[in-house]
Amino acid sequence: MPSEFDLIRRHFAHLTRHSVLGVGDDCAIVAPRQGYELLVSTDMLVAGTHFFADTDAEALGWKTAAVNLSDIAAMGGEPRWIALALALPQADEDWVAAFANGFSTCCAHFNVDWIGGDTTRGPLNLCATVFGEVPTKQAICRNGARPGDDIWVSGQPGLAALGLWHLKNRIVLCEPALQRCLAALHRPQPRIALGKALRRSASAMLDISDGLAGDLRHILTASNVGAELDEAALPLTTLHAAGASRAQSLQCLLSGGDDYELLFTAPPELRTQITQLASAALPLTRIGRITPNLGLVMLDLNGQAQPLAARGFDHFSA
Amino acid sequence: MPSEFDLIRRHFAHLTRHSVLGVGDDCAIVAPRQGYELLVSTDMLVAGTHFFADTDAEALGWKTAAVNLSDIAAMGGEPRWIALALALPQADEDWVAAFANGFSTCCAHFNVDWIGGDTTRGPLNLCATVFGEVPTKQAICRNGARPGDDIWVSGQPGLAALGLWHLKNRIVLCEPALQRCLAALHRPQPRIALGKALRRSASAMLDISDGLAGDLRHILTASNVGAELDEAALPLTTLHAAGASRAQSLQCLLSGGDDYELLFTAPPELRTQITQLASAALPLTRIGRITPNLGLVMLDLNGQAQPLAARGFDHFSA
Repeated sequence: MPSEFDLIRRHFAHLTRHSVLGVGDDCAIVAPRQGYELLVSTDMLVAGTHFFADTDAEALGWKTAAVNLSDIAAMGGEPRWIALALALPQADEDWVAAFANGFSTCCAHFNVDWIGGDTTRGPLNLCATVFGEVPTKQAICRNGARPGDDIWVSGQPGLAALGLWHLKNRIVLCEPALQRCLAALHRPQPRIALGKALRRSASAMLDISDGLAGDLRHILTASNVGAELDEAALPLTTLHAAGASRAQSLQCLLSGGDDYELLFTAPPELRTQITQLASAALPLTRIGRITPNLGLVMLDLNGQAQPLAARGFDHFSA
Repeated sequence: MPSEFDLIRRHFAHLTRHSVLGVGDDCAIVAPRQGYELLVSTDMLVAGTHFFADTDAEALGWKTAAVNLSDIAAMGGEPRWIALALALPQADEDWVAAFANGFSTCCAHFNVDWIGGDTTRGPLNLCATVFGEVPTKQAICRNGARPGDDIWVSGQPGLAALGLWHLKNRIVLCEPALQRCLAALHRPQPRIALGKALRRSASAMLDISDGLAGDLRHILTASNVGAELDEAALPLTTLHAAGASRAQSLQCLLSGGDDYELLFTAPPELRTQITQLASAALPLTRIGRITPNLGLVMLDLNGQAQPLAARGFDHFSA
């Protein structure tokens, strides 16, 4: 059986492009650029909690990198370096090779150097820490939303949840919707270009990992404001078209996790500017507004304010 | 049961002293100083592999931080920030409070800001990523050892292994040696001041996590050199005094992991300078020399070269 050092050397010691020293010493060495601040985020993915233990290793590798990069995107940063620690139940060479391939493909795609990590024996656990750069004082935090700001969301949140429902036999999806939902679940795309483009316009931003409604509450709490969502404005068409009922579509959109789309706020006078950032591949939808009154309500199709009960997925009280 | 967000807020959201933004957003923000490079290291600790599941939570918190800080010390850096991700089998408030107390005590002691992390449900797993600073081009790597260099070690390696043997009933230690060995095992001290002081003198350095002989081999491989250890020079007295036989002492010293003492090489002309860095609390012992011939041998008490079979602990082939 190969030693952990061999496994690391063979699959994890890739060339780095913008690092002083990569894998193989006590630490990696990087030199952040002058005039930039460093963004740091850690995510831990656990078999059984965040993914099925039999999930395709290559897809899991991609996702482990992607969800971390998404945190950098969510602050308007540019991801630059990533470290990965993983615990494996056994030294399964094929699994490690496929996982490493998915992980490094995602890193290379977004020009991120894989600078090191740790491999150990234990129940399957993947912990990545990503470092990004953002020009000093230009990071987009959660606490900048102001009453009157529009609320925007990128892409089609809810697809990943719909894909998960299919895998759990709660719904039956047909092609081509099935492939699209499974791609959203297994190969999320961190919205890095969009995040960077929003640096001077978004007042608050995050990525949707636990569900649109629950994650929006994080912005509201941090900014000490409330929000109204317009049911009529919510992007439900694609979920509908995939075969979900209206109620199912609403649930996936508002409470489904794992989408990694960007949710952000911006002053109304920037609407034209923001609309120009949208594309066919990545639409941007204005779904509501920030209010001075605390709390989160949805204006239903009759214009009546309904309290929004849906909330994000929470590992410890779910 | 409190949510993971509540747990994080209550115990992990400490004040930061030299960070732009700490826990609570998608990323933490730090501003590395100009003229410094950034050192990054990740360590994952798994119950059953690295510690007993019933290990005292406060001590485990200390050790989780300390072993990471030690990687920064091992390159001559100054630890500045740390992120922690942890998987917990259940939301045990008392355990989290004690663990967080140990972790933050160690961080505060070494002036390290705890800037964020992730908490999730899963088999107990602790993954910390630490960031340190070192003046540009002054990091001490593993690949700088040159033939003729002395080999030095700090403190008393082997104590942690002896403490572990006691807990596993392989030996019976008496006070006060028992306390000292258990302290080495449970409350390792990262040698940060020593690491910094060695910036301009050590040619190669690492911290002993897997055993002196095995870790020395990492320096030899990276530097493409060999080494001779002098059996007569090895610091065995304290291990002897604790009740270990000569053979046991040698085994603990050469193969015992978890010590986090510094092992380094330096040119002979710097002996006086290095000796001045030693203290009663932290002696420095010169234990051998780097050779042009590859391989690691020990000169026994008769001056005969013996190949050194002992090797470091390796999670996947042990």
